[in-house]
Amino acid sequence: MMMAAWMARMGIDARIVDKRSTKIFAGQADGLQCRSLEIFDSFGFADRAWKEANHMIEMCMWNPGEDGVLRRSDRVPDVPAGLSRFTQIVLHQGRIERFFLDHIKKHSKDTLRVERAVLPESLEIDDEKCDDHSADIYPIKVQLRHLSDTEAAPAQTTAQTNGQAVSDGMFRSNLADDDTDDLIKKGKENKGGSETVRAKYMVGCDGAHSWTRRQLGFQLEGEPTDFIWGVLDIVPITDFPDIRNRCAVHSASSGSLMVIPREEKLVRLYIQLTEIKPDASGRADRSKITPETIIKAAQKIIAPYSLSYEYCHWYTAYQIGQRVGTNFDYKNRVFLTGDAVHTHSPKAGQGMNVSMQDSYNLGWKLGLVVKGIAQPSILKTYQSERRRIAKDLIDFDHKFSRLFSGRPAKDVMDEEGVSMEAFKQAFVNGNMFASGLSVDYGTSMLVAKPGSSTDQGDGTDVSSTHHEKVVGRQELATNIKLGMRFPSFKVLNQSDARPWEFQEKLRSDGRFRIIVFAGNVLNAQQQSRLKVFCQHLTSSGFLAQHLHKNIALLTCHAAKRTEVELLRDFPDVLHPFDSKLGWDYDSVYVDDVSYHEGFGDAYKNYGVNRESGCVVVTRPDQYVGYVDSLDEEGYVGVEGYFKGVLA
Amino acid sequence: MMMAAWMARMGIDARIVDKRSTKIFAGQADGLQCRSLEIFDSFGFADRAWKEANHMIEMCMWNPGEDGVLRRSDRVPDVPAGLSRFTQIVLHQGRIERFFLDHIKKHSKDTLRVERAVLPESLEIDDEKCDDHSADIYPIKVQLRHLSDTEAAPAQTTAQTNGQAVSDGMFRSNLADDDTDDLIKKGKENKGGSETVRAKYMVGCDGAHSWTRRQLGFQLEGEPTDFIWGVLDIVPITDFPDIRNRCAVHSASSGSLMVIPREEKLVRLYIQLTEIKPDASGRADRSKITPETIIKAAQKIIAPYSLSYEYCHWYTAYQIGQRVGTNFDYKNRVFLTGDAVHTHSPKAGQGMNVSMQDSYNLGWKLGLVVKGIAQPSILKTYQSERRRIAKDLIDFDHKFSRLFSGRPAKDVMDEEGVSMEAFKQAFVNGNMFASGLSVDYGTSMLVAKPGSSTDQGDGTDVSSTHHEKVVGRQELATNIKLGMRFPSFKVLNQSDARPWEFQEKLRSDGRFRIIVFAGNVLNAQQQSRLKVFCQHLTSSGFLAQHLHKNIALLTCHAAKRTEVELLRDFPDVLHPFDSKLGWDYDSVYVDDVSYHEGFGDAYKNYGVNRESGCVVVTRPDQYVGYVDSLDEEGYVGVEGYFKGVLA
Repeated sequence: MMMAAWMARMGIDARIVDKRSTKIFAGQADGLQCRSLEIFDSFGFADRAWKEANHMIEMCMWNPGEDGVLRRSDRVPDVPAGLSRFTQIVLHQGRIERFFLDHIKKHSKDTLRVERAVLPESLEIDDEKCDDHSADIYPIKVQLRHLSDTEAAPAQTTAQTNGQAVSDGMFRSNLADDDTDDLIKKGKENKGGSETVRAKYMVGCDGAHSWTRRQLGFQLEGEPTDFIWGVLDIVPITDFPDIRNRCAVHSASSGSLMVIPREEKLVRLYIQLTEIKPDASGRADRSKITPETIIKAAQKIIAPYSLSYEYCHWYTAYQIGQRVGTNFDYKNRVFLTGDAVHTHSPKAGQGMNVSMQDSYNLGWKLGLVVKGIAQPSILKTYQSERRRIAKDLIDFDHKFSRLFSGRPAKDVMDEEGVSMEAFKQAFVNGNMFASGLSVDYGTSMLVAKPGSSTDQGDGTDVSSTHHEKVVGRQELATNIKLGMRFPSFKVLNQSDARPWEFQEKLRSDGRFRIIVFAGNVLNAQQQSRLKVFCQHLTSSGFLAQHLHKNIALLTCHAAKRTEVELLRDFPDVLHPFDSKLGWDYDSVYVDDVSYHEGFGDAYKNYGVNRESGCVVVTRPDQYVGYVDSLDEEGYVGVEGYFKGVLA
Repeated sequence: MMMAAWMARMGIDARIVDKRSTKIFAGQADGLQCRSLEIFDSFGFADRAWKEANHMIEMCMWNPGEDGVLRRSDRVPDVPAGLSRFTQIVLHQGRIERFFLDHIKKHSKDTLRVERAVLPESLEIDDEKCDDHSADIYPIKVQLRHLSDTEAAPAQTTAQTNGQAVSDGMFRSNLADDDTDDLIKKGKENKGGSETVRAKYMVGCDGAHSWTRRQLGFQLEGEPTDFIWGVLDIVPITDFPDIRNRCAVHSASSGSLMVIPREEKLVRLYIQLTEIKPDASGRADRSKITPETIIKAAQKIIAPYSLSYEYCHWYTAYQIGQRVGTNFDYKNRVFLTGDAVHTHSPKAGQGMNVSMQDSYNLGWKLGLVVKGIAQPSILKTYQSERRRIAKDLIDFDHKFSRLFSGRPAKDVMDEEGVSMEAFKQAFVNGNMFASGLSVDYGTSMLVAKPGSSTDQGDGTDVSSTHHEKVVGRQELATNIKLGMRFPSFKVLNQSDARPWEFQEKLRSDGRFRIIVFAGNVLNAQQQSRLKVFCQHLTSSGFLAQHLHKNIALLTCHAAKRTEVELLRDFPDVLHPFDSKLGWDYDSVYVDDVSYHEGFGDAYKNYGVNRESGCVVVTRPDQYVGYVDSLDEEGYVGVEGYFKGVLA
């Protein structure tokens, strides 16, 4: 969906196929971290998720006291304050898919749609053509098979509870076998329609059993554990006091449980199933797992509090394990994202988020290369940037899930038990990671920071080969970190005084941005620096072909708003004139006090000097590529940065 | 639309007919004041308007300087800070109708729809039945005529500009003749379908030429002026510096102009047409008014700045005049709202707002009477409350529009000219009025405040006749004013720590609310007061039949959130148990510091004592009906208030 959103937004001709016959209607992932919401906002639909979701504010920890009785030992904020304008929220995957589908429909003008009950059955790649990214070269040949809806529907149990059918999510669990080969076989036997697609690029977002990964012969490395967990989406009837907070509950000897309060009075419970063990093959017997066995396990853990339900919406179970892909791409032509290259336990609310962010990282790069705007070499930064993140995720989850599934230590001498203090620390430290905001991409042609690209990424060489390396001057914007996402503070529109989170102006429209921190434009010397800088920008033949079209300009100055006039004090390129639409009033902002929403103090928060300012380059995904001064040095650096990236 | 929204929300069987064949697609009203947004929010769709609209933050005044040259003389905030969580916004009426239509569809489950090209052609009222509000009495008989779409379409000029057709709004202008009788005649001649409707109540929201008002023989009182203004919706091409601010521009001798920046780069201009004068009949010749003549007038006013356009979206013109209806209802059976009972100039952005608020005031009263929940006598508060507001509006507009249309004074001796200082003061004072937040309904059975109901309203007697008058104790909640809307400050949900604007919890669902400011519930004495108070509420036979169903309970306490437990410290009635859904976690809030959004300091801002609290009753429209202590006196008062209102 995320990949399709980029394709729609950038006007790329694409096909999207899904072996399943419907979108998700119940269960699956539900946690949206801060960074995912920032991304949704850059596409324009974060508000829909924010409005419908449950907001997770507080996390409580429950453990046995010295008397062995369960009690609340700690409360911490679910997301540390000040990280983002969003907090973590919870909403079921079906709604999130709906927001994406609506967005894709709107921006592709209904030309891009998810073709359901369609799956690939063969893949051929012409290796010799892979390095030639010219417009008319299609190295990939895929055979697609069309299934009937019945064929594509997964086998489900007919679980019931209180006389009502319950959505059974087990068929997507890692306890279930992959049915892809069966589906292909059925399609062939029944002579379902078939077609050949020739493509320039292909992205396998096809889950832990990824068919695409299997064709490429790539591996997931890692091992499963013996820990089996069940998942229930219920409207709980309970006297447990923190049922509307996120909770980690460690019982003395019956296992652990996590409470995730959801929208519409629902609560998701992750429940350790201590009585179910993997067999000799290493996998647990899933037939024993029903809503009834799961709630019974929960009742033991949460005693002496009562817990039951009249309404169960969905259930599933999974076996904890952490695995990461050896390769994220094949010759920069076929890419793997999400569960196809990293699997782990769902309790940290990471799966959907990190997977969407894989595609968010890759989509604009593919779009710009397809359109001939960017150099094809930027494609290799996908593996370098995202495989590093996946490894960090797997390390985090390995530690966190073992702390979660372990029995609480009885005292400091109990070495087999888990120290609840260590668990709390792991949770608090993990929160920053889990917010998605600690992502820090290494140096490459897209991130002009010092050091070695192989050290800072996953080992892939993504240094700029075309010309001299440029390195940004981090000290000019100490809180706009090279390689990290551009942070947000409130600024005002110069023309109408409306306050905006500055990040809202970094839309995901496929454009890089030159962000001019113009400083004190009422100072004559600074005014003249700004003019010279802008003259340089517009007189560069290389940049001129890209300005506005592929590189947007955004300005934030630090003089008093009411003493400044847009048309008098800013060079035209910063608010360009259009013969039909007049002047552009949406590109120049100011760090000043608002009438109704306080003072963002953006320059201070960004770590930029209010007099002399600086220039920042952001990538189409809001990550910071370059920082320099508003001098010739800065202009040359900006041009150098783009010469290493754009065609 | 607003009336239909209430009918949908309260499940009332209703018909909605409109003589026009389509909804509004261009032009018409566009300003949404703070109070209208609060109302939209109570229905759940303010966010849609907020997202799409242009936000008006600053108002600038432009006048000739001593040298006669136009210059900016003042800047003021468009809405005073701290009034509301919303500011004034601008969005065209077509979108606002869309939000209402979606809401009506959703809540009526598609049973209520606007029937277009349908209009009434006769009205009969059985006077003898009017006082009997029993369920099976239908005193009203209306004959409806169905038109074809062609018949219902208004005659339009085919104005063009730059080769593109421009939407002509003149047919709705007060310079155009009413076409209702023609439409009825055409419908009869062409033998369009006809049907008889028997109704209990009828509401005429049928505009300045109101057919309903004519049938009742009621008058609009007031006089037109000689001032003619044109209106243009354009994408302006201009070097005028404040084109994205709301501006009042007084030229030395070419008339005045108002700038209203709109969504999607549009700007609405209100332009005084000094060269067009009413003829002997008192009405101007509208054939002379075209987009070209209007923009020429604007160019003269705004000189020396340039102003032109390539794209014009809509235009119209109107003659300023202020008129108010003699009667707002006929025997509490037929009601008139909006332009049918008050007309004035559009520049203060009041028309759509005050009209919607008429229906917002009436809708829930009608709904509760139809359902037999409230006493029919509450219906007469509609005229008492809203005719008073209409008169205030007309007084405001009378003064404001004359200051706006007048020539600026050359100096203090220029008595014919308008003092620009006086204009600024009128604007600033008017802002509070224009926000819609100064509405203060007089005493009645619905507003338990001291004094005379005839003095405080429009002269209608709306005192409670059924029993002893109760009077709220304003001093217990000094900023929750009896008769005014319940103000909003941030509070936290006790169960999950999520911050909410407290007003968001006063949904427009047709229910009154008892808001328990529980004070410091950790103090044993206060805890026991709260228990006794709640016991009284649940043991009253009269209240028990209405609690939760027609009277919701909402609590805000002032102890530390983390030291309080919902299930331990609050009587069950404040968070009732449901055998299928468990405990209610959405009704108890706390005035405490949030993790991410600061401290609302609600008790202080509401003027309520943090130890002893108080009880507040709000009407279904968020206006405050009653305030008292959490003692027997308060309980008796709350019961007394409801005995005067509910059946």
